[in-house]
Parts: sequence; C-alpha cells; structure tokens
Amino acid sequence: MTDSARPTACVLIIGNEILTGRTQDVNLAFLATRLTEIGVRLAEARVIADDEDVIVATLNQCRAAHTYVFTTGGIGPTHDDITAASVAKAFGVALEQHAEARRRLAELCERNGVELNAARLRMANVPAGGRLIDNPVSAAPGFQIENVFVFAGIPSIMQAMFEGCKGRLVGGPPVLSRTVVGYMPEGTVAAPLSTLQDQYPDVEIGSYPFYRAGRFGTSLVLRGADAERLSAATAQLAALVTDLGGAPEIDPD
Amino acid sequence: MTDSARPTACVLIIGNEILTGRTQDVNLAFLATRLTEIGVRLAEARVIADDEDVIVATLNQCRAAHTYVFTTGGIGPTHDDITAASVAKAFGVALEQHAEARRRLAELCERNGVELNAARLRMANVPAGGRLIDNPVSAAPGFQIENVFVFAGIPSIMQAMFEGCKGRLVGGPPVLSRTVVGYMPEGTVAAPLSTLQDQYPDVEIGSYPFYRAGRFGTSLVLRGADAERLSAATAQLAALVTDLGGAPEIDPD
Repeated sequence: MTDSARPTACVLIIGNEILTGRTQDVNLAFLATRLTEIGVRLAEARVIADDEDVIVATLNQCRAAHTYVFTTGGIGPTHDDITAASVAKAFGVALEQHAEARRRLAELCERNGVELNAARLRMANVPAGGRLIDNPVSAAPGFQIENVFVFAGIPSIMQAMFEGCKGRLVGGPPVLSRTVVGYMPEGTVAAPLSTLQDQYPDVEIGSYPFYRAGRFGTSLVLRGADAERLSAATAQLAALVTDLGGAPEIDPD
Repeated sequence: MTDSARPTACVLIIGNEILTGRTQDVNLAFLATRLTEIGVRLAEARVIADDEDVIVATLNQCRAAHTYVFTTGGIGPTHDDITAASVAKAFGVALEQHAEARRRLAELCERNGVELNAARLRMANVPAGGRLIDNPVSAAPGFQIENVFVFAGIPSIMQAMFEGCKGRLVGGPPVLSRTVVGYMPEGTVAAPLSTLQDQYPDVEIGSYPFYRAGRFGTSLVLRGADAERLSAATAQLAALVTDLGGAPEIDPD
C-alpha cells in the first residue's frame, strides 16, 4: 500500500482554552501516535474555537476530505459545551436524548450522590443515528456518527475512549520507522541525505537537529511500510553518517 | 473593542513529526499565550504535513482569512525543509538568496568552523519582498512577507523570533482574565453559570473540570476587555460558588 492509498484522518481540537494558551494540548500527540501505529495516516489537525458556525463548517469540510475525523473537547454539562449540538447540525440531524447514555449517567449520579439535573442530562444528548463510545472513567459517553468520532477533551478520558472504539477503525499496514542519531550538524549531512532520499522515494526521511549535553546532532527518522527497503536505507544512512564522523546510533522505534 | 473587531491570527504548524506523534508541539501554547497578551485573538491553528501543495493551499486560505499568520517549522537546510519555497509559491514570487541572511550564515559558519555549503545556503533563501526576522540563537533567520511570519520549529528559536518581531504586530486592548476555582462538580454549577453567562455576554466564561488530590472541582475562567464588568461578573460567580458550598479561590491571571 502506498502512503497516498492509506486511510487518512483529521483531528479537530475544539476549545477556546487551547487557543488562549491556558491549556497545553496533549491529545494530538496521543492520537497521532496511535493512528500511525494502526496504519492510519494523520493528514491534518485543526484547533478551533467553541463556536457553532466554525465547528459546523470545519467538520463538514474535514469529514468529506478524510476517512476518519476525531474531535476532542466540548461534550461536558456547561453552556460552553456545544460540540454535540454542532455535530448534529453539521449532519443535519436532530440532537436526541440517548436512552443508554441517560441510564449510564443516572447510575453514576446515584453512585456519587449527585442530582441528575438538566445540565448533566445534556451529556446524554447524541445526534440521531449516533453510536455511543464508552467512557470507563466518568460514564458520560462520546459517540460516533458515520466517520466522525467525538471524544472528551480530558486526556485520560479521551485516551480510554480511543482504546475502546479503535476496533471500529480500518487501518493500513503499519508504518515502520528507524531513527539514526548522528553527532554532526544538520547542514553537514544535508546533501548526501537528499541523494539518499531520491534513491528511496518509498521511504520518508525526516531530519531533526538537536543540541544536548553540549553536542550538536541530528536525528534522522526513516519511515516506510516495506521492512527490507527500510533496513537497506537505514544501513546506507548509517554508513553515510559514519563517513561524516557522526558516530551513528540506530534506534528501531 | 468587541472581540469580533479584534485582529485575528492563525498558527500553521508545518511538520510531519507532529502528525506522526514523534514530537509534542509546544509552539502553539507559547504563541497562543503571547498573542492573547497583546490583544490579538488566535482564531485557529492547523497542523499540516511537509507537502508543498498542502502548504500553498492552506497558507493562501489562512492569510486571506486572518490579520496575521504565523508558521513554524521547515526552514532548515535539509531536503524536507520546504516552507520558504512553498511560501514563495503561495505568494507567486521568486525565492531569492537574501544578501544579509547569507552574511549572517557565513559569519556563523566561520565562527563554528563549518563550511557554508549549498545546503546551509538554502537557509538564506527568502521569498522576494520578504523582510528578515532575527534568529539570535543560531543565525539562520525567519522572514515576514505581508501578513505572514515564518518562524523556525525549534521552540527556543521560535520564541526568540517572535519576541524580536512582535513590535511589527498591532494588537487590540489586552484581554483580561480571572479564574474562580470551585470545589464542586461541573454539573452542579452548570445551570446558574449559564444564567450568569447570559447576563454578561461581553465576558466569556469557560468551565474546566478537574480531579486533584482526591477532590473534584471546576476551574471557571472569565475573560473580557472591560475590567469593571469582569470584576462584577467574577464577584457574582464567587458568590454563586459559595452558595453551592464550593469554597471559591479567585486567581487573577
């Protein structure tokens, strides 16, 4: 499978708190790692505000462009949690109380000794046709509608939701990767690296400079689906770094 | 100034390493915080691949939609650093060697005892009409063309570039914020919070639940440009949290 034939995904991070800098997002890195592992190519991510028009327009654009869309944030009980209503509007369907979601919330409220009030009941609202995504942490479920998966924003809950529904995703063959760390500046290895990349169009080679413990170096990351081609490119790259005096270290990821 | 009249910004994070989960982005949170402080509203952020067609299309869409666009990543010396060429293509101008950028690179190479080879010279290429952005960390400059600011991806360099060119940005009045932390679950405060939000349409109120040291709580963040209105809303909210037994703590941010 070529990279362009691989299923693609878009992550939509919904939340003013990310756009004001109040909160450091960590959900994207988690989803990026897990999707890559199952052979889904994360093609883009967007961070957008808690604004219905923006959510509707962005979601409709992204769900048409990608195999899967994953949203995080905005499914709690307060006035600023508008993701479920916005998703319903994007799909042109009603937002309805989901009986099983209500049952789970009622059970949790009883266990915690709090009232299942109107605000908490908002968390049982799901666009018509939506399928629940379990929340083993705090009961209030996420949901899937067509190719769109709606997750909570709190990282522990989002991660549990992803793990619980990843069986619904169809990935491609896993992308394999190797990292060659060379202790030489990026500008020294750039020219032969470019030649190597031209020899291996099916292996994506990325170059990431670093400075640590008083030494300049470059992490060279090779990615591809064919193990033999990847090994061949890695061996050539290691030899090249050795020639440049870079004392390569090779890490299989 | 109303929030919708405020200058807006978009951050474009360019880099496959973010989309595979190899690297946790921290540039967005930095830019979000600093832009908010100077009264520029960060309206959206996008993470895109090192792909010329994608960069050109996304940049042209975002630079038309926002007052400012800030890009991070892809301006190093290797074959996968294609941001400068892509920006030139988006603007329909030539990518040219910039004499002052070349001078700075030559000086750095001489100091470090490395060759100013063809790969390193790529870092002197700037779209025609571009204005340099200083890089006090490793010399290779960023650049500004019209409303687009092109930064490095390495956080320490990106931050120095932003600080060095922020005098070119025109912001609105600063957005002020207060946080009321209440030790009660989000679902308990949701209804009166919604009523308060309706009373203060000019103050944006966000609700962020947490669980720490064995206690459930909710951080309620109020944001607005009018100090008196913000103080009044904060006082009402604190009284409301007290009534609910939430023992509020108030933090000016």
